[in-house]
Amino acid sequence: MNIKKRVFVIIRPHKKNDVLSMVFDWVIVVLVLADILTTILDTLPQPERVILCFNILEIITVSIFTIEYCLRFWTADLLYFKSKPFKARFKHALTFLMIVDLLAIVPFYLQFIFPINIHVLRAFRLFRIFRLVKIKYYVKTLSHVGDVLRRKASQLFISSSILFILMVIASVLMYTAEHQSQPDVFENALSGLWWAVITLTTVGYGDIYPVTVLGKVIGSFFAIFSIGLIAIPTGIISAGFIENIQDGKSIHGKKKHFCPYCGENIDANPS
Amino acid sequence: MNIKKRVFVIIRPHKKNDVLSMVFDWVIVVLVLADILTTILDTLPQPERVILCFNILEIITVSIFTIEYCLRFWTADLLYFKSKPFKARFKHALTFLMIVDLLAIVPFYLQFIFPINIHVLRAFRLFRIFRLVKIKYYVKTLSHVGDVLRRKASQLFISSSILFILMVIASVLMYTAEHQSQPDVFENALSGLWWAVITLTTVGYGDIYPVTVLGKVIGSFFAIFSIGLIAIPTGIISAGFIENIQDGKSIHGKKKHFCPYCGENIDANPS
Amino acid sequence: MNIKKRVFVIIRPHKKNDVLSMVFDWVIVVLVLADILTTILDTLPQPERVILCFNILEIITVSIFTIEYCLRFWTADLLYFKSKPFKARFKHALTFLMIVDLLAIVPFYLQFIFPINIHVLRAFRLFRIFRLVKIKYYVKTLSHVGDVLRRKASQLFISSSILFILMVIASVLMYTAEHQSQPDVFENALSGLWWAVITLTTVGYGDIYPVTVLGKVIGSFFAIFSIGLIAIPTGIISAGFIENIQDGKSIHGKKKHFCPYCGENIDANPS
Amino acid sequence: MNIKKRVFVIIRPHKKNDVLSMVFDWVIVVLVLADILTTILDTLPQPERVILCFNILEIITVSIFTIEYCLRFWTADLLYFKSKPFKARFKHALTFLMIVDLLAIVPFYLQFIFPINIHVLRAFRLFRIFRLVKIKYYVKTLSHVGDVLRRKASQLFISSSILFILMVIASVLMYTAEHQSQPDVFENALSGLWWAVITLTTVGYGDIYPVTVLGKVIGSFFAIFSIGLIAIPTGIISAGFIENIQDGKSIHGKKKHFCPYCGENIDANPS
Repeated sequence: MNIKKRVFVIIRPHKKNDVLSMVFDWVIVVLVLADILTTILDTLPQPERVILCFNILEIITVSIFTIEYCLRFWTADLLYFKSKPFKARFKHALTFLMIVDLLAIVPFYLQFIFPINIHVLRAFRLFRIFRLVKIKYYVKTLSHVGDVLRRKASQLFISSSILFILMVIASVLMYTAEHQSQPDVFENALSGLWWAVITLTTVGYGDIYPVTVLGKVIGSFFAIFSIGLIAIPTGIISAGFIENIQDGKSIHGKKKHFCPYCGENIDANPS
Repeated sequence: MNIKKRVFVIIRPHKKNDVLSMVFDWVIVVLVLADILTTILDTLPQPERVILCFNILEIITVSIFTIEYCLRFWTADLLYFKSKPFKARFKHALTFLMIVDLLAIVPFYLQFIFPINIHVLRAFRLFRIFRLVKIKYYVKTLSHVGDVLRRKASQLFISSSILFILMVIASVLMYTAEHQSQPDVFENALSGLWWAVITLTTVGYGDIYPVTVLGKVIGSFFAIFSIGLIAIPTGIISAGFIENIQDGKSIHGKKKHFCPYCGENIDANPS
Repeated sequence: MNIKKRVFVIIRPHKKNDVLSMVFDWVIVVLVLADILTTILDTLPQPERVILCFNILEIITVSIFTIEYCLRFWTADLLYFKSKPFKARFKHALTFLMIVDLLAIVPFYLQFIFPINIHVLRAFRLFRIFRLVKIKYYVKTLSHVGDVLRRKASQLFISSSILFILMVIASVLMYTAEHQSQPDVFENALSGLWWAVITLTTVGYGDIYPVTVLGKVIGSFFAIFSIGLIAIPTGIISAGFIENIQDGKSIHGKKKHFCPYCGENIDANPS
Repeated sequence: MNIKKRVFVIIRPHKKNDVLSMVFDWVIVVLVLADILTTILDTLPQPERVILCFNILEIITVSIFTIEYCLRFWTADLLYFKSKPFKARFKHALTFLMIVDLLAIVPFYLQFIFPINIHVLRAFRLFRIFRLVKIKYYVKTLSHVGDVLRRKASQLFISSSILFILMVIASVLMYTAEHQSQPDVFENALSGLWWAVITLTTVGYGDIYPVTVLGKVIGSFFAIFSIGLIAIPTGIISAGFIENIQDGKSIHGKKKHFCPYCGENIDANPS
């Protein structure tokens, strides 16, 4: 096995008995979690010495992530072994996880070129958390949950668009009803939209609510409607999970394709 | 094909390969969305020039909607080709979507006759959003969700009426318990009703809540009951979606009726 | 058919084609709704004349309810025609709906004997709303929903008791964590219990919430747990509704027993 | 039957017709409930005499709990009759209920040795409530609910971890968006995390919410996402309950193992 193949096997989610691959996976997982923890702790007032540690950790983390990204890009032709090398790399670079990885490392380098606010862009690094798919144990279950959501995508989209339509209608109606009584609170229809979101999701902070009789009548109507908005997607997803169980056997019967190098199932999305 | 038939085909949701019909559908969808966006933006303070643009857009939109309404009315006899022309038009004018369309255009003309507050009536135009059924892709899924709700309508109605009964009981009990301690907040049983709606839907703004021990006991009881009020409709709807999946095959076996002019399935509600 | 049997048929939910029975049912339904509406409107400031009307309406309503109660008691031996007359009446008087009816009329007479606050006791009259079962159309669906809840009663009871245990634990933990920082808000463990109810049901008024770090950690834990508390009963009830549909055919095959006098199904609870 | 076996039978959940065992079970249940009630009432201001009563009750309760714990430890070799006596006792001492029991009695003795705040540690005693499994009636149903949760554990874990990831992302994004406008409210990313928990669980106290436009856009996005966070676990649990019903027959067909001494089913977790 040449070096390229060996590197490919190591950066892919680990096979049993391949210690180096397993160590690599866990190093990445620990670095991602450490990076996220640092992002949170960085917002707390810290003594100078801790800030220095954080900066060193950031440099190490970004360096490792950069090397990892390059190795993934380099070995992409082994993943899509049917495509031509260039096309394979381009195809791989446009997968969700590779874009996330790129967004996670680019801001760090950009700050040396442009005087930008690194804190805002740093938030992108949070999405590296999806690299937790390295922990193989959960991937199968996650893809099971994903299957259900994908299968019911169009129904959930319809529900969401009804929710959106309702929110727009609610916002304009509530603005019309309340603007005169509370000109500062219901300043415009966008305030109404914020009210509609917070009410229809049943969060209800209490920073904005109707005070007139007409406003309370409209508010009551949409508040009651919010029950349906929770019930319908829940019903759709429940049905999806039950269908998935009933289809279980036929899925188990499917023929699967395995990578000739690492023994991984290559039907799933490459990560 | 004479002009009337051609117009009818164009204003109906488009068939594949009929470019004019497709263009018409998307023009309507874009106009509806633009109109709603304008309604929201109109509540924000805008420079004079933008207001002028909005007014011109409104005149154009209402004009097109008026022409569309007339064409729909005129071609109704092709939709209900079994009824007599007059009866067909009358029948079509009373369908939900046609009433919505009429309510969307009438207020615009009324303002020239009576000095009314156009903003309130303009809200009716929001309901034109139902014309998004033009986007054929979602109609099938939407009717699937609609089927489930229709099939479970009586059970959902019962749940709603239990919810309503509970709200009335809660409102009087809470008013009785809290009126003396908070005469300004729990002014009358209607304040209690507003409290009951906001609590039983778990929104909980925090503008009105019990402070006495008895009030808190009653409030706790109804708050716990709110879990059931979410759980029961969700259970009903879940069962509905699962039933729908299981009945899937028999539904697919149904014989369908298609319009001889446009090839549309005329079992569905005309839009 | 003698008078007693005729009265019995009239006061029972009506059969088709029995006009008098149908009129009687609707009179009761209208009176119950009018009585509830009056209870709510009575809390609003009203001119003297309206109060007089309300008082007259109350006297009429209570009189009719009293007569109805007596007739139901008198004809109970026809309902339970297998029991002895005295036992049948006693058995009927202890059914849920008969106790509700008694509680609805007794406070009115008590006010002439003792100088009590009639408003509090009047709330009992609200429960007469259960007489809406007169509207036969909904009884079947209601009993369907009731079946599901009864079938899953023990599982729902377990869920509720876990909810209750969690609330008690949460209340003591939160009281311990927050008492020192907010002695006025978390006065004692009962304040903690109120917090627990309002948080675990996701109502969240915002009158009481943790401010210390420990309190927020405990609060976060229980807030996340609240998702499970909604999900578990919903899952139980969903399963119940689905089971009910699947058992549908065997239920339809059951042999039913009908009253020899009115043709009513006497398997259901007498009302 | 020697004394040890007799004691073992008594402290285990009771068999029918064994009066002493039944009495013992109910004494424990009553003591646990009394102890929890005392813990709550202890936080209210009480007259001296009541405090004395509470202290006496505490001594009695802890004594009985201590004796019970010792007896359970002593008779553990009869429960795990296949293991060696020492190993059996050690194994039993590490079961969930035995650890809870130990944590419930240890703090009481610790206060005589170290000058610690007994109130905080006393909260552990609340968990003795799990001894309510003594009430055999509910054990079967509880284990049914437990089965469903165990069966779906990995899916629920995945949902929870997605929830956690979302909360972390939401907290950093919201902190970034709101810190400048509300430096006191969104002090650091941990405040953002508290906001995320309270919003994604739809509790919404209203102590912390976005005020800037960007913050409201992010807040709206996560508020709408909260619907999915309730819907997914509910769907999983619903599917679990339905699967459980469908597997019902095969479960009934399983061979069970009964204790040779008390006739209890020893497949269940020992308590």
